[in-house]
Amino acid sequence: MEEITTFELTRAFADSLKKAIEEQNNAFIVEALQGVNPADITETLEEFTTDESKYILDLLDTEIGAEILSNLEEDTLKKFLRVFTPREIATYIEYIDSDDAADILNQLPVRDSEEVISLLSNPEKASHIIDLMRYDEDVAGGIMAKELIKANLNWTVEQTTEEIRDQAENVSKIFSVYVVDDKNKLLGRVSLKNILLARRGTRIKDIYNDDVISVKTYDEEEDVIAAMRKYDLEAIPVVNMQGVLMGRITIDDVVDAITEQAEEERQLMSGISEDVEEDDSVWMLTRARIPWLVIGLIGSFLGAEVIGLFQNEISSIPIMAAFIPLITATAGNVAIQSSSIVVQTLASKSAFQDSALKRLYKVIAVAIINGLLLALLAFAISYFRRGDLSISFIVATALSCVVLLASLTGTITPLILERLNINPAAASGPFITTFNDILGLAVYFAVAYLLF
Amino acid sequence: MEEITTFELTRAFADSLKKAIEEQNNAFIVEALQGVNPADITETLEEFTTDESKYILDLLDTEIGAEILSNLEEDTLKKFLRVFTPREIATYIEYIDSDDAADILNQLPVRDSEEVISLLSNPEKASHIIDLMRYDEDVAGGIMAKELIKANLNWTVEQTTEEIRDQAENVSKIFSVYVVDDKNKLLGRVSLKNILLARRGTRIKDIYNDDVISVKTYDEEEDVIAAMRKYDLEAIPVVNMQGVLMGRITIDDVVDAITEQAEEERQLMSGISEDVEEDDSVWMLTRARIPWLVIGLIGSFLGAEVIGLFQNEISSIPIMAAFIPLITATAGNVAIQSSSIVVQTLASKSAFQDSALKRLYKVIAVAIINGLLLALLAFAISYFRRGDLSISFIVATALSCVVLLASLTGTITPLILERLNINPAAASGPFITTFNDILGLAVYFAVAYLLF
Repeated sequence: MEEITTFELTRAFADSLKKAIEEQNNAFIVEALQGVNPADITETLEEFTTDESKYILDLLDTEIGAEILSNLEEDTLKKFLRVFTPREIATYIEYIDSDDAADILNQLPVRDSEEVISLLSNPEKASHIIDLMRYDEDVAGGIMAKELIKANLNWTVEQTTEEIRDQAENVSKIFSVYVVDDKNKLLGRVSLKNILLARRGTRIKDIYNDDVISVKTYDEEEDVIAAMRKYDLEAIPVVNMQGVLMGRITIDDVVDAITEQAEEERQLMSGISEDVEEDDSVWMLTRARIPWLVIGLIGSFLGAEVIGLFQNEISSIPIMAAFIPLITATAGNVAIQSSSIVVQTLASKSAFQDSALKRLYKVIAVAIINGLLLALLAFAISYFRRGDLSISFIVATALSCVVLLASLTGTITPLILERLNINPAAASGPFITTFNDILGLAVYFAVAYLLF
Repeated sequence: MEEITTFELTRAFADSLKKAIEEQNNAFIVEALQGVNPADITETLEEFTTDESKYILDLLDTEIGAEILSNLEEDTLKKFLRVFTPREIATYIEYIDSDDAADILNQLPVRDSEEVISLLSNPEKASHIIDLMRYDEDVAGGIMAKELIKANLNWTVEQTTEEIRDQAENVSKIFSVYVVDDKNKLLGRVSLKNILLARRGTRIKDIYNDDVISVKTYDEEEDVIAAMRKYDLEAIPVVNMQGVLMGRITIDDVVDAITEQAEEERQLMSGISEDVEEDDSVWMLTRARIPWLVIGLIGSFLGAEVIGLFQNEISSIPIMAAFIPLITATAGNVAIQSSSIVVQTLASKSAFQDSALKRLYKVIAVAIINGLLLALLAFAISYFRRGDLSISFIVATALSCVVLLASLTGTITPLILERLNINPAAASGPFITTFNDILGLAVYFAVAYLLF
């Protein structure tokens, strides 16, 4: 029995493998990786150079190598593919499910992917892969696999069991058998449990469940995720517009998609422009962080221009400067909150959505209440500390205007990004704070100018 | 065949239900909800008052009501439970899997939960639930269900099939049959497919797979999620310290946990203190947003105190004020980036971690490079715009110090929070920006004071 703690991936283990590669000590490598789960080998190879990885893959069974290739992260995979010939890739593809195979071939130049496909020994698999490569990455058709078990409505459980036996090698995880008519139209599903428990000679039509939830090939990935989550499904069949069964999507792909979305969102929200991890090189970490820092810097210089216009006022009333961080920080905080709430609505595709007008009314209502509360508090604190009524009044007035404006920009920005097909979570990052810093400063000094 | 688009949850539908409740038009309600998936009814009830929901639940089959109760979000569930008597709750619990049942009973006062348990007709279920209630929410034991199918190593496939038949009602989704010895120790697993395809009389020991990945009852939720993701599992068995099979965790619970974690993280990062959605009331939205805005405000007033100390300097060199947003914005951006990278390491529990010393070295190296690049750029821009060497020098020097300090605080804060058992993602939110605003201002004016 293998427990999750059995195989601990250590630097020492990785280093011993690297040393063995250098010394071409193949016996050690084969021995060391004997019985190790391919997912663990994948994780190790993510940290190796492409040449080191190829050396190891060449020593492993093709089937294990195939599993490793289909588990690799996209960046690593791309680098891997460059060092393999189309013939080598084809050998691995024979063992890889159609959905992962299509993903891998999509990373290759068209010329190479066509060569790989032409080299496949199984013509059915080749046509499956070509079929899947037609779909966009982010629709159900682009995520589904062609491998599944289907049974005709009129079959007996014995015929169905035979079909399962025939397909056993191609379909490792079955979950449900999909029930179709003579034209391959999806009619329902029957669980393996019910097939196992049915009496001999029972026909599928007497035991199947016609209440099957399916998605269309052109449904978006988010909708697929939402449906599988809501109905607690481990697999969902995919049909075309005519209801013909085209493939199925399994939960492991959805789990990966959810996790990747969450990571992408965190990076967007924290202004990191590449997919980096703490153990990446100093150079990669710097490169991932500098773009948004520079954009923020340039934005701040625009803010400096705004403040520069009011040099004389600041010179005569220097305490005006003390409240600059109050204005910019509040503008940023409010805008991030607002955009985050909109991003959540966009992500959850909640069925209950208020109308556009009601949403706008609520944004404004919340902004006015929050703005007034903060303004009151700011007025009280600044008057208590400085005893200057007019400054306190300016700060409070500017603050409530800033809260209102930041709420509106924070709400609208993700909606615009969504329309432009940019991940709306980008609106909860440094972009919105930089933008609102400038806006907030303009409002603050404009209010000061008008009220003095 | 039910497609995901078949049942569209509309305001109109919800309103018609509410109207029917008011008019006590039970026939309409029963008719309207006939054949609707319980998950869809749950979503509708999330928007209803507790009394309205109870009215509807009382009209539905207990089995459907049970599914709805086990799907409810925690907040809504708590409100629901207040209007049900222990006897009513017990009726529902009879139909609910042990893991969800334990979660529900954990929401009740001990007195009530004990009463509910005493009212259960099935003593095995009662003891299952009591057993599960012992575990913390965030360890494997607290997530697992007791319902599973196990087979003794020496059974034949026929005996196993009989066991499946006996348990069919209790275990809706089987995935794998777990193989145990006479002492209930987990030895491996066998897929339903292999049982179905095995010849009559085959013994489990000849077809089972002893390479089963399991978790311990006390393993943390994050580790369970990581294992199921990495090895693409749809269910994972849970064993105690002696290796005895205690329960199993299915992927639907893990999918929910991943999604909830991502939502919680987004809220923490955007300074929203309650779990709100756009269609919640103005009052709830305001309440969720005001705490962090007030904390940010108070932080900014502390920043104002710092600036206030340098009133005379600002009065004589008012352009000093223009660079305040540059300092605070950069401090915030750098700190958020740093903390986000650490949060990611903590979340992914990547096996390859650099040593503490190497991590520190890299944080400092990245900070120095980014700090110098930004300082150079800031020096160039400010000198070009103002032509004042000493101001440009002060800004550039302060900026590079701020980048270094913000990198360190951003890196250390999530580690401290993790140690304090607070979600480290909280370190990527308004807290870190507020803190670094003040720190940045102090550095800026200190540098100015020293260099003038």
